[in-house]
Amino acid sequence: MDCQILDGKAVAEKVLERVREKAQALSARGIVPGLATVLVGDDPASAVYVGQKIKRCEANGFNSIHVPLTADVTEEKLLDKIGELNDDPKVHGIIVQLPLPKHLNPEKILPALDPGKDADGLHPSNQGRWIQLKGWDEVLSSGIPLPCTPAGVMEILKHYQIPISGAHAVVVGRSSLVGKPLASMLLAANATVTVCHSRSNNLPEFCRQADILVAALGRPKFIKADMVKEESVVIDVGISRTPEGLKGDVDFEEVKSVAGAITPVPRGVGPMTVAMLLWNTVKAAETRVASD
Amino acid sequence: MDCQILDGKAVAEKVLERVREKAQALSARGIVPGLATVLVGDDPASAVYVGQKIKRCEANGFNSIHVPLTADVTEEKLLDKIGELNDDPKVHGIIVQLPLPKHLNPEKILPALDPGKDADGLHPSNQGRWIQLKGWDEVLSSGIPLPCTPAGVMEILKHYQIPISGAHAVVVGRSSLVGKPLASMLLAANATVTVCHSRSNNLPEFCRQADILVAALGRPKFIKADMVKEESVVIDVGISRTPEGLKGDVDFEEVKSVAGAITPVPRGVGPMTVAMLLWNTVKAAETRVASD
Repeated sequence: MDCQILDGKAVAEKVLERVREKAQALSARGIVPGLATVLVGDDPASAVYVGQKIKRCEANGFNSIHVPLTADVTEEKLLDKIGELNDDPKVHGIIVQLPLPKHLNPEKILPALDPGKDADGLHPSNQGRWIQLKGWDEVLSSGIPLPCTPAGVMEILKHYQIPISGAHAVVVGRSSLVGKPLASMLLAANATVTVCHSRSNNLPEFCRQADILVAALGRPKFIKADMVKEESVVIDVGISRTPEGLKGDVDFEEVKSVAGAITPVPRGVGPMTVAMLLWNTVKAAETRVASD
Repeated sequence: MDCQILDGKAVAEKVLERVREKAQALSARGIVPGLATVLVGDDPASAVYVGQKIKRCEANGFNSIHVPLTADVTEEKLLDKIGELNDDPKVHGIIVQLPLPKHLNPEKILPALDPGKDADGLHPSNQGRWIQLKGWDEVLSSGIPLPCTPAGVMEILKHYQIPISGAHAVVVGRSSLVGKPLASMLLAANATVTVCHSRSNNLPEFCRQADILVAALGRPKFIKADMVKEESVVIDVGISRTPEGLKGDVDFEEVKSVAGAITPVPRGVGPMTVAMLLWNTVKAAETRVASD
């Protein structure tokens, strides 16, 4: 049987259509959704990511408020700036681009964001709230902003009607940005969930059990054909710049001969992240309007 | 080989020794750690649990501040009461005994607690914070209050020097009180973690893979000998009142002939819960003193 290519770019475009509808409805009421992007220092990769987010904002009817700060900005100054954005009624979502320079601790900075403007869904009190909810529908309808990349993976699975309930989902990687929240989301959606990582013994054996295998460890072409169950669904969250170009954590050419469905890199999970960021922001703007 | 009985009662007593030392040191400085117990309505089981907590407080040098409220108390009144306890300098820890009557939503009540007085470790912003940390040592040293029962399980594993890193831990049950936070703790301690539940297919097969099997589903004697790997460690979090007396989720008599180590019921995980509650409270009092 042919392996189905899960087109994240197309799913992201569907999310963005709904985002634009919401943005237009808000604009008709005089409210333009606004995303503030805080970029500390001049890391070139971070500058590229922020640039993409700003471009997406503008293409989808958002205001973007860019806040560049020098690499030596003090914690106090950064917190002041976040406080201003928290108070600014034109700002509905805020992101602080990670990684931050070493002298700034994200565990101190991120909780300073207004949880109602948490466009990245990384505020601990938001995360603590949805993690305590029982089912995935309850999580979605709660309106709590969710971390963008894992929420984007859930959106791809939903779009392609991939059965999650009762399936064995194996997540390789346990970052706070992807692995851990995605495991919680899959669990809420009734999967049996295993989380593997660099300290796991017999990692290939766990991977081979997966009905849904998620690779989010950041090692290019790590997942090989012999680590994948036949007809399983393989989601590749990794993206690394290699001499051969952008590569995911999955050896796509090998694995697509075994898997039943697979996300490519690029045009897989990547485009979902920015789409969910705009989704969180437009939802925050709607909530703000409803409570005014 | 004989199955080792993991004596939770003895481990709890060791925790309580440290709690008493801390309470005495604080009392010498004029601060008596205080735990407020909020009990809404007259559910007999809840009354028993709260009674045990109060007794433990008094036996370990704490003040206990009991706040009984009638079953028909309004949300507003309950939130006012919590506000008073938040502001009361003699109160270092607060618990709101669950379950609450149907008209009161714990998702609205629990976040009203001062996160610094969260004796049960259930405040979403506390949970969101420690879940984002990288390793178990980092979680422990953060001083963030942890949910009592799962933290108690971790303490038992540590006391008996049961290797967690690289082990496959299978958690059966995904409650917000036990299954989900315990899975996060075991993951932070470098286990490969699988969470199973009522919707899992092949549950016995997952259980048989476990080096550490945690039963936290609330079904008496559910885990049978043929669901357990030889020489594995079995942690029984369940406790149900049955015609044969108090029973855990594990069929103790059967399973102890297969497992390498097992917690009994009673005298297993149960005593740890109250010990960790007092631990959270005395730590909160220490933190309060340090910041005054």
